[in-house]
Amino acid sequence: MSVCRVPKTLEWVGGLDGYVSMIDQTKLPTELVYLECRDQESIWHAIKRLSVRGAPAIGVAAAMGVVLGVRDFVGNDRSAFLAKLDEVCEYLATSRPTAVNLFWALSRMKNFAQALESDCVNTIKVSLLSEAKAIRDQDAAMCRQIGEHGQSLIGEGHGVLTHCNAGSLATAEFGTALAPMYVAHEMGRKFKVFADETRPLLQGARLTVWELAQANIDATLLCDGAAGALMQSGQVNLVITGADRVAANGDAANKIGTFGVAVLAKYHEIPFYIAAPSSTFDFDMPNGAGIPIEQRDADEIRKGFGTLTAPPDIPCYSPAFDVTPAGLIRGIITEKGLIEPVTTEYIAQVLS
Amino acid sequence: MSVCRVPKTLEWVGGLDGYVSMIDQTKLPTELVYLECRDQESIWHAIKRLSVRGAPAIGVAAAMGVVLGVRDFVGNDRSAFLAKLDEVCEYLATSRPTAVNLFWALSRMKNFAQALESDCVNTIKVSLLSEAKAIRDQDAAMCRQIGEHGQSLIGEGHGVLTHCNAGSLATAEFGTALAPMYVAHEMGRKFKVFADETRPLLQGARLTVWELAQANIDATLLCDGAAGALMQSGQVNLVITGADRVAANGDAANKIGTFGVAVLAKYHEIPFYIAAPSSTFDFDMPNGAGIPIEQRDADEIRKGFGTLTAPPDIPCYSPAFDVTPAGLIRGIITEKGLIEPVTTEYIAQVLS
Repeated sequence: MSVCRVPKTLEWVGGLDGYVSMIDQTKLPTELVYLECRDQESIWHAIKRLSVRGAPAIGVAAAMGVVLGVRDFVGNDRSAFLAKLDEVCEYLATSRPTAVNLFWALSRMKNFAQALESDCVNTIKVSLLSEAKAIRDQDAAMCRQIGEHGQSLIGEGHGVLTHCNAGSLATAEFGTALAPMYVAHEMGRKFKVFADETRPLLQGARLTVWELAQANIDATLLCDGAAGALMQSGQVNLVITGADRVAANGDAANKIGTFGVAVLAKYHEIPFYIAAPSSTFDFDMPNGAGIPIEQRDADEIRKGFGTLTAPPDIPCYSPAFDVTPAGLIRGIITEKGLIEPVTTEYIAQVLS
Repeated sequence: MSVCRVPKTLEWVGGLDGYVSMIDQTKLPTELVYLECRDQESIWHAIKRLSVRGAPAIGVAAAMGVVLGVRDFVGNDRSAFLAKLDEVCEYLATSRPTAVNLFWALSRMKNFAQALESDCVNTIKVSLLSEAKAIRDQDAAMCRQIGEHGQSLIGEGHGVLTHCNAGSLATAEFGTALAPMYVAHEMGRKFKVFADETRPLLQGARLTVWELAQANIDATLLCDGAAGALMQSGQVNLVITGADRVAANGDAANKIGTFGVAVLAKYHEIPFYIAAPSSTFDFDMPNGAGIPIEQRDADEIRKGFGTLTAPPDIPCYSPAFDVTPAGLIRGIITEKGLIEPVTTEYIAQVLS
């Protein structure tokens, strides 16, 4: 049993006067560049332009962004400090409106500060930093638990298809969709991973196959449109993707294209799994119909990576996410266990 | 009733000492460049690197390539000339092994020459040029007939999804999949076309929306992975794509991604049509299982936009085509009529 080496996606460096170091994922796979974020604005922009992406990593970044936003607060007025904290959280919440982990992390930081009995603002600041680090460490532990709950789905010699990047680059460590693969790999199992390139932003090409290759896992890249032929050819035994938000009934919003993969998996009778931590579930959302879907900038399609490949003024349809109905999902792998079958009741039971 | 202006994809300019003028489709949509092909090698390369693409246009290009290949034959020895013709046809046949229209056009040119009673090689050359031009003109007429047989499928206010480019740029004039749209547009009907960008070579982005916009048809571009969300949103009333080869039972090979669109259409109960001239049918092929599928160069995925967007040595799965089973195809629109339902018997009946 070996240990998988996965990249250090983001971490806090130093003490309260330190900074957040994160891989600028917009530069991968050709350059490995680390951003040093020293204020809330740099965190906001990093989330906005996808330098950091993936629901759990966004949660960690936001929690650390809260610390950056309040650490320079001057004075020792507890309520003024808490008001400033609110303001910072409101600001960071606008960076990516569909990421439920963002709101979860911001709420956790706010609730944590409010519950602290200390009247010393500096103590609260230091405690908030510990809490942000705890969110990171708990995320890393959660990823490993997801991996352990999901690893047995991947048999010796299997082909596993994934979409977008829900790997170590999307989290503090092992990822969600990729965590079962990393754990199965540590256990010495041999299998093959197929990764959709995931247009428009090519997270599969830039990130997923890059991090799998770093960990010496056999990875093959394909265009999104080739997933059907790949399944038809019999090379896919299961699909695992991540999720940005899961409704109470199991409907799952994830990167655009996920729904199409789920429909293809159903057609080929290939089991389709979602891997997501419990923080991704939104129990205020009874089903997927109400999940807001942002439209992305048309130039991400028209000028994919710098070259104009379409008429410059052609209208584009570019939702960031789609919603896969629970009926197409064989199971949801969480840190608390595998939810299979996917029903409102069983989700509530496993996650309670 | 207006007339649609569509671009001049390829034509023979001048007499027997003339040349083939064709749009270099690898330069669209940013530059409109015409290639002047004056020998068989330039036609071979134009087919190989997709400067001309689409089954019918390839057929026309190949027929004209035959003329370019034999016109400089010296002497008046009929059998030596016919041997040279065979050699040229064999050479041109290697440019794109899956394009059945290529073989069809080459056979037609060979059979035509062999059937000519003239012993004058020059007369045969001139007749071959007329025959190549006839193939072009017949293709243009066929496209219009496909358009006329298919136009009534497109209702007022409909949304029509297409994949890849089976438009005027794929044929001598109106295209196949787009022909019903051009004819419906001429008839004054209002509708909206959605075009998958069609990775890896982005024919939808570079060609389809470009030519639709030239003809003032309302066109919207999307990433291949967004087709599921688009259908889920209720904006698609029907799908029409082209085909590179159709087996006797109606299984259809077309650009990679077509099969996935067909599965999605089935899931959403949206009718999925293929538009293809009868020359695309291969009656020696009982079903799609035997259709050879070429793998394309991995760098089309890894360096898709001229920029390296994946690890440089990552393996890729890149079939050029996939096969849509007849059971997913509501109907096939041919120049001889609409084949609906798609059965071996009804195909034979309509095309006989």
